[in-house]
Amino acid sequence: MDEFDIETVAEPTLTDPVLVEGLPGVGHVGKLAAEHLVEELDSELVRRVYSTHFPPQVSVDDGVSTLANAEVYAVSAGEERDLLVLTGDHQAQDGPGHYGLTDTFLDVAEDLGVERVFALGGVPTGELIEEYDVVGAATSTAERDDLTEAGVEFREDEPAGGIVGISGLLLGLGERRDVPAACLMGETSGYLVDPKSAQAVLEVLQDVLGFEVDFSSLEERAEEMEEVVRKIQEMEGGPAATDEDLRYIG
Amino acid sequence: MDEFDIETVAEPTLTDPVLVEGLPGVGHVGKLAAEHLVEELDSELVRRVYSTHFPPQVSVDDGVSTLANAEVYAVSAGEERDLLVLTGDHQAQDGPGHYGLTDTFLDVAEDLGVERVFALGGVPTGELIEEYDVVGAATSTAERDDLTEAGVEFREDEPAGGIVGISGLLLGLGERRDVPAACLMGETSGYLVDPKSAQAVLEVLQDVLGFEVDFSSLEERAEEMEEVVRKIQEMEGGPAATDEDLRYIG
Amino acid sequence: MDEFDIETVAEPTLTDPVLVEGLPGVGHVGKLAAEHLVEELDSELVRRVYSTHFPPQVSVDDGVSTLANAEVYAVSAGEERDLLVLTGDHQAQDGPGHYGLTDTFLDVAEDLGVERVFALGGVPTGELIEEYDVVGAATSTAERDDLTEAGVEFREDEPAGGIVGISGLLLGLGERRDVPAACLMGETSGYLVDPKSAQAVLEVLQDVLGFEVDFSSLEERAEEMEEVVRKIQEMEGGPAATDEDLRYIG
Amino acid sequence: MDEFDIETVAEPTLTDPVLVEGLPGVGHVGKLAAEHLVEELDSELVRRVYSTHFPPQVSVDDGVSTLANAEVYAVSAGEERDLLVLTGDHQAQDGPGHYGLTDTFLDVAEDLGVERVFALGGVPTGELIEEYDVVGAATSTAERDDLTEAGVEFREDEPAGGIVGISGLLLGLGERRDVPAACLMGETSGYLVDPKSAQAVLEVLQDVLGFEVDFSSLEERAEEMEEVVRKIQEMEGGPAATDEDLRYIG
Repeated sequence: MDEFDIETVAEPTLTDPVLVEGLPGVGHVGKLAAEHLVEELDSELVRRVYSTHFPPQVSVDDGVSTLANAEVYAVSAGEERDLLVLTGDHQAQDGPGHYGLTDTFLDVAEDLGVERVFALGGVPTGELIEEYDVVGAATSTAERDDLTEAGVEFREDEPAGGIVGISGLLLGLGERRDVPAACLMGETSGYLVDPKSAQAVLEVLQDVLGFEVDFSSLEERAEEMEEVVRKIQEMEGGPAATDEDLRYIG
Repeated sequence: MDEFDIETVAEPTLTDPVLVEGLPGVGHVGKLAAEHLVEELDSELVRRVYSTHFPPQVSVDDGVSTLANAEVYAVSAGEERDLLVLTGDHQAQDGPGHYGLTDTFLDVAEDLGVERVFALGGVPTGELIEEYDVVGAATSTAERDDLTEAGVEFREDEPAGGIVGISGLLLGLGERRDVPAACLMGETSGYLVDPKSAQAVLEVLQDVLGFEVDFSSLEERAEEMEEVVRKIQEMEGGPAATDEDLRYIG
Repeated sequence: MDEFDIETVAEPTLTDPVLVEGLPGVGHVGKLAAEHLVEELDSELVRRVYSTHFPPQVSVDDGVSTLANAEVYAVSAGEERDLLVLTGDHQAQDGPGHYGLTDTFLDVAEDLGVERVFALGGVPTGELIEEYDVVGAATSTAERDDLTEAGVEFREDEPAGGIVGISGLLLGLGERRDVPAACLMGETSGYLVDPKSAQAVLEVLQDVLGFEVDFSSLEERAEEMEEVVRKIQEMEGGPAATDEDLRYIG
Repeated sequence: MDEFDIETVAEPTLTDPVLVEGLPGVGHVGKLAAEHLVEELDSELVRRVYSTHFPPQVSVDDGVSTLANAEVYAVSAGEERDLLVLTGDHQAQDGPGHYGLTDTFLDVAEDLGVERVFALGGVPTGELIEEYDVVGAATSTAERDDLTEAGVEFREDEPAGGIVGISGLLLGLGERRDVPAACLMGETSGYLVDPKSAQAVLEVLQDVLGFEVDFSSLEERAEEMEEVVRKIQEMEGGPAATDEDLRYIG
């Protein structure tokens, strides 16, 4: 197998496509958001990307194995806009793998006509969230100003440690290819899988790209998570339970 | 030395060969099973595979050194079936090594006419086993249904973390080459070297491939292990001794 | 992206240029010193170096992202001397990356006419410093003797563990290319970001290369650090507070 | 710099040369022995080997830097025998580096006419040694029997974990090139730098290769080490002090 290997599953014709990435990360915000688009909208698997920098692993579903990979879907977001949604279960296992995979994803995107990239993810706040702000980063001030109008917050020193992994490199390597890219990061406690944060991120994306998606399934998952939190708080002695009790749930 | 290096020891003529892999892993189930086939049946060493991704190490037996390698044996499983048995003392030391070694093993297998692959291993249950079920995973539903008839269990969410290492990649990379592959995983506590689990796996393999092997030496090893467990339980205060006491034995 | 990638930002004409490196390290001495030169003197960004051996990361400033890189500035140190100042936020993430990046930096330097290299850094003493000595290492006895005249101390067994990272390799790989190189290491406690140590290193460099730079901004930062130390000592119970209290500040 | 880089310092004419390797390891036995040969006999530095798999580091001696490397000396062991002694301060930093460096060392040795290899090292016993046995491993039974006559002990299950690092690979890769190789391992506590163990190893080597070297400087170092042990035992309460007290000295 090659270090990075693109498998063509289908050859879609796309209208004004935009790449939307959601791989595993803080609160699984990006992955939840990307999977929600694939599930709720008309979508078709078009590419699989394999790599020796993914874990040496197959997943098993109902006894049938699948080699570690990332999936790229063509997703219809209305008559004038298609999305190319990138998701999967893995980040790369090492630094050169992150760079090489991101380059491969950008190759796939450019090959399918993509001229703009959105990386979705979460930014940990360390406390339970009341209002789900979406924090942004972009490859240029023009891109930044465009997103500010959609309610994205751009803050002087956030995210403090920069953006690590494939989301970050989509901006870094995107810029070097003159592909404008932005990262939309939903605030999230960092302790829980966070469907509400994913919804907040998708609402911004809807606004920026002009499409609509139904959120009822994400809202159901959010209610399930809240039920989990309530039960833990009761076990720990009611509403006095601290954030600390919630660490590592999900 | 090349990154992956195949040494031809003999050029066998094989009848309808099947690759059977058993490298070190949980309970040493796969390795015990593969070595049992090599020891009990007519077998001939045909290939050694060396790699810079194996540990930088020689083993020493009676003062004579052997470079870290994996061994491939031609094993007669009756007049109408030969096995190609892959075993050894090492897994790869890094992710790209796992991918490259598995590709190399599949090259060897295809070169010798193999059209089907069985990876043998153990699946840890965390408790002592009464009845040794064999859990399976396969590259296709056809392969899965064939094994279900032989008593292999295919469970919705097992193994939970997928299959890691060369066993997993034999399925993942096998499928990408259109070589049907299955993993047979004997349930095992995970605390002990488990000859009984190895026997359970081999009994399934016998059934599927139509051959017979004598199990008396594996049964002897199983009795030795049980004796060890009994002694520890006595030291710990009789049958009340918990699984915890057995952790890391073997 | 290539493993090591040089981006040409400007093509300067340099007079008798000397490479001055200051990347992150003990007490941030080298980085503080290099950045001070870029900020206080006439300077122009001339090269960026990207690498898959840098962290897979973008930094974000005011919402705009920048891919991990090292920057090379042309800095005027008077009419008869230009400096080529190398700085940035990252060391390489692995050994081969350190070697490859240092080779790349030396390629950039030689391409721009550099014939002498200074690596700036700190040497940890484990205690608060009264008088900031500068310890040196050089590729040759000639280079060493030249620096001894400028007050640099060369000690038999220091630094005890040698010099690790890009500073060390600028000497090691510089020597192999016949480019004379020296490392100037300001003594520093190792617990604090140390502007005074950076100033001590720059004073030596001024003396050796014959240029002048204003130190008032470094002196301000030094006073801020001293204020921090004083407050910690008060919290800990006055001047009796030990070095131990200061560990990991900065 | 290339991944592995041989620098030719001198072109010796050698008589029936044998490679003798002594790099850092258990009790520094191999390195002490190799350096003793270089210091006590007529010797000339003939090759330096650099590698991106060595630590990214220079050592500093009296202010002058030296890039991490391994050194190969031509050493006269009498009129009819020359030794090629390989020593240095570093092992490789990763597995592929160990394989690549060992191949490079064997290239150097074969290029200079070497037809037999001795790797020197220590084998840890976990307790203070009274009589310094030398344990062996070899690429063939012929080589093994030859060394048995010189008093080397070959034991069924020793060393238990095989031989790791460049010493081990000199046997493993030597055998694959048809260069007979043996490893001579002096028993040593594993807690101390052990000049006595180095002497025991060299006495075997003298016997096998027919040369003589003066041991007075090694004996002096051994006495110094014994003095250190005595002082620690006194501090700890006399001769009752256990092996445990000596762990990690040296």
